[in-house]
Amino acid sequence: MELYSYYRSSASFRVRIALALKGLPYDYRSVHLVKNEQLGAGYASVSATQLVPQLMDGAARIGQSLAIIEYLDELHPEPPLLPGTALDRARIRSLALDIACEIHPLNNLRVLRYLMRDLKVGEEAKNAWYRHWVELGLAAVERRLASEPKTGRFCHGDATTLADCVLVPQIFNAQRFDCQLDPMPTVMRIFEACMALPAFQSTQPSACPDAEA
Amino acid sequence: MELYSYYRSSASFRVRIALALKGLPYDYRSVHLVKNEQLGAGYASVSATQLVPQLMDGAARIGQSLAIIEYLDELHPEPPLLPGTALDRARIRSLALDIACEIHPLNNLRVLRYLMRDLKVGEEAKNAWYRHWVELGLAAVERRLASEPKTGRFCHGDATTLADCVLVPQIFNAQRFDCQLDPMPTVMRIFEACMALPAFQSTQPSACPDAEA
Repeated sequence: MELYSYYRSSASFRVRIALALKGLPYDYRSVHLVKNEQLGAGYASVSATQLVPQLMDGAARIGQSLAIIEYLDELHPEPPLLPGTALDRARIRSLALDIACEIHPLNNLRVLRYLMRDLKVGEEAKNAWYRHWVELGLAAVERRLASEPKTGRFCHGDATTLADCVLVPQIFNAQRFDCQLDPMPTVMRIFEACMALPAFQSTQPSACPDAEA
Repeated sequence: MELYSYYRSSASFRVRIALALKGLPYDYRSVHLVKNEQLGAGYASVSATQLVPQLMDGAARIGQSLAIIEYLDELHPEPPLLPGTALDRARIRSLALDIACEIHPLNNLRVLRYLMRDLKVGEEAKNAWYRHWVELGLAAVERRLASEPKTGRFCHGDATTLADCVLVPQIFNAQRFDCQLDPMPTVMRIFEACMALPAFQSTQPSACPDAEA
């Protein structure tokens, strides 16, 4: 398999974690988002949507991090990232989507660029926007994790799932932009538990082949 | 089952379509987003994230439209909304996420409010923002649908899937904000094919119990 990734792309990071949890080897293909490599003709032939991550599995090309992880989980079921009953999977997926749909899309590089270039939003207001969506979204995730009985050592029970693959990259982003994480003790406890595992350590941005100083 | 919904919420519309395609009855519970009913104490006890849609299935509470549809598809497999092989499902999910993660979150009511109230963006620039993300995102979906051999009468093959449940509500939003849809003939062909079906007709915003003139 080949994974088109960028070290700071949190959607790519989700897939790197899933591949590592399942012990699946792959070739890392770097796409430098800040240099707009995703918009070049070369990458357009790889990904019609010009987004990372993109997985190539033989002739199969798959985009969208959550679709990639579901695909990997179907073909390589151990360890399961969507374990349990339909209701368990619904909880895991909804936690992942609480981050992937409510937080992350608002803080994408192309969105921040639009704010600054087209709406002439200054650096400070841009950072306030970033923190607003992270803190609002993670507060909702914290309320769920702190109150729902299925929360365990990790987001769902005592083994890592899809939800943890999505949570951890979002915390990296939050820390980079100095978001307030003190009001999120359950989120941060789970983050620390994940980061104690090699699959999360070895795939973090600073450990990627294309990491910059 | 009970579905907490708002007639103009496109995420709610996705679930209404899925329930209709599967012929599942439910009680419609209206949450008026413009009146901020989702932020009241009453709804906070229903949904920890204070978002719609929310499905109640006996004691089970499930948020996030895509997680709800996957849950319904697992428990009520006919007709399947994620048919075929793992690769088929990956394609269907990635098309759904190309809309649910790349377009819709940027045009949510709360995001538009932030632009206007906090960033003092004017009406015209707000509408330009809206159209920008819809047109950019749908252009990517059009490229995929027009070029990928699995596209059929609907997004994936000749039966409706999760991808159609997500595409159709996005087109309603696009039309409401006068987005350019002429450059998207495949998207619009599939939209029309869906709207010829009772499951899409009967669940559209104007057909909801809480629809306003």
